[in-house]
Amino acid sequence: MRAARAAGREVFGYNRSVEGVAAARSEGFDATTEISEALTRAAQADALIVLAVPMPAVPAMLAHIRASAPNCPLTDVTSIKKPVLDEVIAAGLQARFVGGHPMTGTAHSGWSAGHARLFNGAPWVISVDDHVDPAVWSMVMALALDCGAMVVPARSDEHDAAAAAISHLPHLLAEALALTAADVPLAFALAAGSFRDATRVAGSPPDLVRAMCEGNSEHLVPAIDRVIGLLGRARDALARNDSLAELIDAGHAARTRYDSFPRTEIVTVVIGAESWREELAAAGRAGGVIRSALPSLDSRR
Amino acid sequence: MRAARAAGREVFGYNRSVEGVAAARSEGFDATTEISEALTRAAQADALIVLAVPMPAVPAMLAHIRASAPNCPLTDVTSIKKPVLDEVIAAGLQARFVGGHPMTGTAHSGWSAGHARLFNGAPWVISVDDHVDPAVWSMVMALALDCGAMVVPARSDEHDAAAAAISHLPHLLAEALALTAADVPLAFALAAGSFRDATRVAGSPPDLVRAMCEGNSEHLVPAIDRVIGLLGRARDALARNDSLAELIDAGHAARTRYDSFPRTEIVTVVIGAESWREELAAAGRAGGVIRSALPSLDSRR
Repeated sequence: MRAARAAGREVFGYNRSVEGVAAARSEGFDATTEISEALTRAAQADALIVLAVPMPAVPAMLAHIRASAPNCPLTDVTSIKKPVLDEVIAAGLQARFVGGHPMTGTAHSGWSAGHARLFNGAPWVISVDDHVDPAVWSMVMALALDCGAMVVPARSDEHDAAAAAISHLPHLLAEALALTAADVPLAFALAAGSFRDATRVAGSPPDLVRAMCEGNSEHLVPAIDRVIGLLGRARDALARNDSLAELIDAGHAARTRYDSFPRTEIVTVVIGAESWREELAAAGRAGGVIRSALPSLDSRR
Repeated sequence: MRAARAAGREVFGYNRSVEGVAAARSEGFDATTEISEALTRAAQADALIVLAVPMPAVPAMLAHIRASAPNCPLTDVTSIKKPVLDEVIAAGLQARFVGGHPMTGTAHSGWSAGHARLFNGAPWVISVDDHVDPAVWSMVMALALDCGAMVVPARSDEHDAAAAAISHLPHLLAEALALTAADVPLAFALAAGSFRDATRVAGSPPDLVRAMCEGNSEHLVPAIDRVIGLLGRARDALARNDSLAELIDAGHAARTRYDSFPRTEIVTVVIGAESWREELAAAGRAGGVIRSALPSLDSRR
């Protein structure tokens, strides 16, 4: 809400938290704890609905939307995309749905954890699944760009596989590390910056971490298997030959590749043109981002 | 050298790197690439020698010290303590040796990576093994305090077990994470702050990471086993019951305990008094730090 208002958009919101709504109102935002009021108003205005709840709350919210605002364009910011899409399809709302995931945040949650520049420069994934509507896609793209994000187009399943590796797995490693150190006398006494950094995300609220990780088990289980395999091979090499060369050299090379990962700008795709979804997915996979609004077929006519 | 000089100490140094020595000299430091010159001068001045090399270089440096300055008080800043102590004993230099490890640093190395405030507020472990000399211990303590550090007294083996959990294991997790993500299309394209933080130490020079991790295999192998065990149980619970409650709840609780880990100040121990080493080790284990110089038996007489 802060970022959209800062971009000059009209924005109104619902939250179940009385305190959250009161805090938003005290900053001059138009917010309510009455969901049907918010959704009726959205339906009248044909507003773009941004669903921002953890996965376990998605089905109940979709039921409300189906009841009160079934024809509004709809996006979401939940950190897993395929399970949300499945729920949207189950609710019969897929025609005007385009999923999204801004890759930003802090270890804190609630109204006070946000700020207007939270999305600045962050990758904001927008789903390009097989049947997404070009007009709604353009709307969600415009919102993300207005919030200062760069748009990464991606298929929901590819997003989820990547999120398992770069977001969900790091959470589990941080939890396991904190727990391993807790059993060693002197460990907390000696821990310094690198341990604090490495376990920072273990400070996130457990229910939110569980919701995002458990909802992505299809991709997270193989990612855990992969990391266990790498650690197990390193452990055996260390125990047998006192050598960690394989893991450390390859890990350093991978991190170096990440540091120099090229971001290119996507400029040639026309939203709604033939194969536009496939082209955007391929461009996103290759490191492409959208930094200013792509044309759509309508806008070129 | 920077921190000691900033505290008003006379300091001179040796490094094998011509560039490093030239850079230090250009900042007005007294430095040489001639090791026998530096050690002869140290022997004449009865200077406290601070050995600051990675583990693989320790034996050769100790041979030089034995040849040219065998009676100087000696400490080190290598990130593993028991293997250094073993080498010191093998070189016959244990009488005036007290090991140390300042828990600070960056992902960079060499002269340009340091600064005078690098040790400010950092835990600086000083070994209290069975036979350490109280006079040398006091000298090393005074150096650490002059550099702005807080002193954590610890036995070498306990230090190494803790370092495996809070420093060496995090390096391996960062390497394994970088490598896992590198195999997933779209992962680097989506990676944001939390992935960058979680893999930051994988950017450290592989030879330094190998030296410190491989030198601590005795404690690192069981730490890897523990983390594999935790991840394996979490993986099975996720695959079977879609639940990560056990790992995430316990990891969050551990991280919360770390955040509130109490640091107390050690003030009552007299260095050189009966059982002073055991008392310091117990106090360090319980979170105690030395923030201003403890008295020694000599200074109280």
